[in-house]
Amino acid sequence: MKKKRVGIVGATGIAGQQFIAALDRHPWLRVTRLAASERSAGKAYGDALRDDSSGQLRWWASPDVPQWCAGMNVENASELELGDLDLVFSAVESGPARELEPLYARELPVLSTASAFRYEDDVPLLLPGVNMEHAKLVKKQQKLRGWKGFILPQPNCTVTGLAVTLAPLHARFGLKRVSMVSMQGISGAGRSPGVAALDAIDNIVPYIPSEEEKVAVEARKLLGKLTARGIEDAAIKVSATCTRAPVLEGHTEAVSVELASKAEPRQAATAFRAAGRKMSALGLPSMPEQLIRVHDDPFRPQPRLDRDAGDGMTTSVGRIRKEPLFQHGLRYLLVSHNTKMGAAKGSILVAEYLIAKGFL
Amino acid sequence: MKKKRVGIVGATGIAGQQFIAALDRHPWLRVTRLAASERSAGKAYGDALRDDSSGQLRWWASPDVPQWCAGMNVENASELELGDLDLVFSAVESGPARELEPLYARELPVLSTASAFRYEDDVPLLLPGVNMEHAKLVKKQQKLRGWKGFILPQPNCTVTGLAVTLAPLHARFGLKRVSMVSMQGISGAGRSPGVAALDAIDNIVPYIPSEEEKVAVEARKLLGKLTARGIEDAAIKVSATCTRAPVLEGHTEAVSVELASKAEPRQAATAFRAAGRKMSALGLPSMPEQLIRVHDDPFRPQPRLDRDAGDGMTTSVGRIRKEPLFQHGLRYLLVSHNTKMGAAKGSILVAEYLIAKGFL
Amino acid sequence: MKKKRVGIVGATGIAGQQFIAALDRHPWLRVTRLAASERSAGKAYGDALRDDSSGQLRWWASPDVPQWCAGMNVENASELELGDLDLVFSAVESGPARELEPLYARELPVLSTASAFRYEDDVPLLLPGVNMEHAKLVKKQQKLRGWKGFILPQPNCTVTGLAVTLAPLHARFGLKRVSMVSMQGISGAGRSPGVAALDAIDNIVPYIPSEEEKVAVEARKLLGKLTARGIEDAAIKVSATCTRAPVLEGHTEAVSVELASKAEPRQAATAFRAAGRKMSALGLPSMPEQLIRVHDDPFRPQPRLDRDAGDGMTTSVGRIRKEPLFQHGLRYLLVSHNTKMGAAKGSILVAEYLIAKGFL
Amino acid sequence: MKKKRVGIVGATGIAGQQFIAALDRHPWLRVTRLAASERSAGKAYGDALRDDSSGQLRWWASPDVPQWCAGMNVENASELELGDLDLVFSAVESGPARELEPLYARELPVLSTASAFRYEDDVPLLLPGVNMEHAKLVKKQQKLRGWKGFILPQPNCTVTGLAVTLAPLHARFGLKRVSMVSMQGISGAGRSPGVAALDAIDNIVPYIPSEEEKVAVEARKLLGKLTARGIEDAAIKVSATCTRAPVLEGHTEAVSVELASKAEPRQAATAFRAAGRKMSALGLPSMPEQLIRVHDDPFRPQPRLDRDAGDGMTTSVGRIRKEPLFQHGLRYLLVSHNTKMGAAKGSILVAEYLIAKGFL
Repeated sequence: MKKKRVGIVGATGIAGQQFIAALDRHPWLRVTRLAASERSAGKAYGDALRDDSSGQLRWWASPDVPQWCAGMNVENASELELGDLDLVFSAVESGPARELEPLYARELPVLSTASAFRYEDDVPLLLPGVNMEHAKLVKKQQKLRGWKGFILPQPNCTVTGLAVTLAPLHARFGLKRVSMVSMQGISGAGRSPGVAALDAIDNIVPYIPSEEEKVAVEARKLLGKLTARGIEDAAIKVSATCTRAPVLEGHTEAVSVELASKAEPRQAATAFRAAGRKMSALGLPSMPEQLIRVHDDPFRPQPRLDRDAGDGMTTSVGRIRKEPLFQHGLRYLLVSHNTKMGAAKGSILVAEYLIAKGFL
Repeated sequence: MKKKRVGIVGATGIAGQQFIAALDRHPWLRVTRLAASERSAGKAYGDALRDDSSGQLRWWASPDVPQWCAGMNVENASELELGDLDLVFSAVESGPARELEPLYARELPVLSTASAFRYEDDVPLLLPGVNMEHAKLVKKQQKLRGWKGFILPQPNCTVTGLAVTLAPLHARFGLKRVSMVSMQGISGAGRSPGVAALDAIDNIVPYIPSEEEKVAVEARKLLGKLTARGIEDAAIKVSATCTRAPVLEGHTEAVSVELASKAEPRQAATAFRAAGRKMSALGLPSMPEQLIRVHDDPFRPQPRLDRDAGDGMTTSVGRIRKEPLFQHGLRYLLVSHNTKMGAAKGSILVAEYLIAKGFL
Repeated sequence: MKKKRVGIVGATGIAGQQFIAALDRHPWLRVTRLAASERSAGKAYGDALRDDSSGQLRWWASPDVPQWCAGMNVENASELELGDLDLVFSAVESGPARELEPLYARELPVLSTASAFRYEDDVPLLLPGVNMEHAKLVKKQQKLRGWKGFILPQPNCTVTGLAVTLAPLHARFGLKRVSMVSMQGISGAGRSPGVAALDAIDNIVPYIPSEEEKVAVEARKLLGKLTARGIEDAAIKVSATCTRAPVLEGHTEAVSVELASKAEPRQAATAFRAAGRKMSALGLPSMPEQLIRVHDDPFRPQPRLDRDAGDGMTTSVGRIRKEPLFQHGLRYLLVSHNTKMGAAKGSILVAEYLIAKGFL
Repeated sequence: MKKKRVGIVGATGIAGQQFIAALDRHPWLRVTRLAASERSAGKAYGDALRDDSSGQLRWWASPDVPQWCAGMNVENASELELGDLDLVFSAVESGPARELEPLYARELPVLSTASAFRYEDDVPLLLPGVNMEHAKLVKKQQKLRGWKGFILPQPNCTVTGLAVTLAPLHARFGLKRVSMVSMQGISGAGRSPGVAALDAIDNIVPYIPSEEEKVAVEARKLLGKLTARGIEDAAIKVSATCTRAPVLEGHTEAVSVELASKAEPRQAATAFRAAGRKMSALGLPSMPEQLIRVHDDPFRPQPRLDRDAGDGMTTSVGRIRKEPLFQHGLRYLLVSHNTKMGAAKGSILVAEYLIAKGFL
């Protein structure tokens, strides 16, 4: 197969760096263009990453900037040449995304980590092993908007592990209520330079603006049904409390659910273990063997030990037990890699799926 | 007033050190005896704190060991002289507590941080501003057991901030269900040398053995009613998930409650602000001006900023908002100092109350 | 004594916040004006501290913004009203300092944490207990520049603890060579929001731009002699390696010195303990009882335990031992509070000295 | 080649775990026996790793205990069956090593991370790329002691990166004096459970017992010459200051050297880059392509970014510059992985060398 040619927009930010790291030696995709804000345009990528005053390289996605991109020219995102690209990964903030992504989508598929279009009726959120059948909605989007391409946003990094684990419970037992408290890694904070060390060390920050609303709304959409009228949100009550913990990467989430029918912890474990099998069978390069790994050791999952399971694409679950507050209640904890499955690499896996299924 | 003479048992452990630090220059209490296991017996306290192999001082309660105790002789806890003491603070593990504390209680009041006797019918758990009227149960305990003294355990450090904040909600609106997820500081781990740095840095540990059961059982007892037959547990469903975070001190807890009657967040805030006033009016040395501090800034409370509020005795609350999962639901986060209000200093405040009320 | 009226310029930055925290309830000084960049001008101070996008309060100097300044109007630094001020504390970056500080110094004394004027011939660097006799140079500066006021910069935070400890060694034994390796706290990074958590956790950053040169040059100037021609730098070779460690506050420094004459570790300890006595005798509000505290325990000093010694104004020294590389060699480690003695509060102590000696 | 059969003694400790992790899927070596203290003897390895009271798995070498060893029986180290082994890796503390290792060495080669025999005249310390020619000394040891095997200790983890980088400087320019200040990762602390989190977070511990002496003595031995009379220590003055930093793994060291002849930084860089080439050419499984990696970016090396270079076997060097204190002086910083190159995996590389050269 000829590799698809990929442009990365917002390439200098944390999320953009993660796209570059995740596409390093990718068998199906090749990065041929990089773009960022006007400030970086015209610079070599390696230079654009340096802090103006200190000269410090602002790169966090891997020990070193891959050699193939260090010398690549950074284009101005608002003037990106699209002619020789097959798709665009967009890793810009929500504000610029609202303006830039439609420009690209007129010509090309745009997979984005920005939240700008997540809540539009004709825009699906896709999560591997959860709702890939929602992909068909992009056809409607193209028709409605008259675009050759489409916009396909990645769900929020915090809802990702949650929805991955809720999906098999919902399918098998029915979900009524979901309560989630997160302890999120600091790499999830979008804006460079992200969380200040003075806030992070020896501390918990109890609030992440807009995060809790995103989790609730996106969970219902991800678990919803695609009908002729669009996506019908799942009728689940979701309550999220999102905090920031002194953890570099990996979101830990304590989840309680009320189910429609009785489920023993071991039944939930069985459902978790079976999740994603169909998707795993497709042979996509970024799909892990196990979508969900279930731990019996009550001291697991831990973010430092488990975030890299399945190369960052496996959600790790442990401590499955009864939730005494609900009639058919269960509780568990999960760890999900926020900048792999929860961001760039998750978006790349969706792209792989779209290629395999002929959408790209 | 002549100062009461205090013995500290388990003086070399983390909890014992906190008693010493909290009693440094105490206006009503004076430490006159220190005891620990046989291993330390006969040594000067400052020497008993040193690691045998490295010589490192294993002292964490303040920058320096107070001078008045560095040279004090450490007695063998099982042979502690009680004759010239007025009370004992016990800071031993639960196993030894079960054997040692009754020995002392025959003669003297014993206030303890151990869990050994917390669940006995004739043993109250006292929390300032919450249920000090349960103190009367010690009379019954003395009679039943034929002791001159009594055993009065401090509740678990994780239930402390929770119960402090639940009490005014229960009194005003009625509690039906309580869900709590904790992110606990590492100083709360009882055993020397506590949490290993290899587990703590860049990590969350999702399990603390027995902690969740303690929280549930003790919350119901703390919020219960003292009747002629003893304490009648509050009929509240409690579900706790307890995790360890890379925070030195201070437990952060995300709390959701279902109330019996409707309460707006501002009404809850009013109830929180009013808590403990009667107790504050007693003029006890360790009682803070505010039992609960309410933050309007959604980025508060944070453990590093708020654990020392009221010199570690104030519980800080923030992000009070509706809980969408319940009909009359509220959510909030709290920070409570686990080794001050939640351990030694909380126990000392109880002792002060007992002195003021004539129990001691 | 009537309190001096103080303006703080750069009040919203980390260093400016530290001036405010250190001047809270100061017995001799009262903050009457706050200034910052145009971006903050016209706002109430409490509002100017909030991040535009998230609303998060960017305040790190103490748990809460003192109430007396939360509502104060922030003026534009380039249009600050000087008429009713007695002195200005400047906490701006070096670039703006070069422009703003001379504007103020025409009228008023300016004590500054910026490096802009540190290396001018007519500008002394003052360090309590080290070289307060250099203060006289400001008279020359005023005359030369025709100013009513003067500029008096605070030395770099990393050279502070070093020079405090070198001074008694130099006076008593003569210094020839000094080697220093620092492990610096993250609060020392000037620019908001300072060090990124992604760089700080589980890491050491081996380079702090310009820091090593500042340490070398300023150490020689601080230990120099004031002559009729100005300050004659001390003829000492200084080599510094400066790194950033995951420590919130407090700089730890490993120091090796070659002395001109033989000194046993205990003689150095004696010299350290005697340092600053004359200065302590002046009764200045911010001067600690001990300028240098010497530890015998080889596990001290530690930044978390010792940075707050003397309320952040005492330099803690330990592990004094022979340096085998030099004929008359000694080694030791020190901890110095970089944002108290090493920044705002150190500058305030200099102001107190100038008041006591009639310079202000 | 038939795989050599390996026994690991001290298998449950941190160093022993690192042997197991490093031998997982090793092409030349197969672990066939595990031994530990009497306390663990007779248990399955996976059970022996659990904390008695909490049940927590005390395993830190990789996310999971490899399956092949979880069920292996742990033997009592003092009764280990040697008959079917080809060599033993010993990872016990120094005390037990002194008794156990000679028992094994009578029959078999013993490669050890313990310091017990490092300073004996007939015992070499081997460091790949530095002094592998010292291996011949084991013949003399065998003869002298009448053993079929021998004891070959791994040098201290802190001297490892230092000696790796000093060796090419010494060979090319001659070393006279070496000053080193370390900021060491916490995994280097030998004893389970290692460094207490209460000491590590937001802190630097300025002292590691015996470490500085080990660095000085071992550096001179490693850089010494093997003569007919044994190893003649290099005539270099070494001064080390060793501290513990909040870093999980990786030792960072600031090094200053005085050379016998002039060397520009770029000449040192050339010498570093050439180091280990002969050894790399042998095709040993654990030998990295580059023994030393030189960084031009002054913000490197950083332990979190660089400890895993060459799979933990490459020493990373940066900031090579003149040392102004010495006539022919140079300075640099290095990062070395303390539990890979500096411990188990370094010892395994030595074993591979001995196999390739016919010593095993």
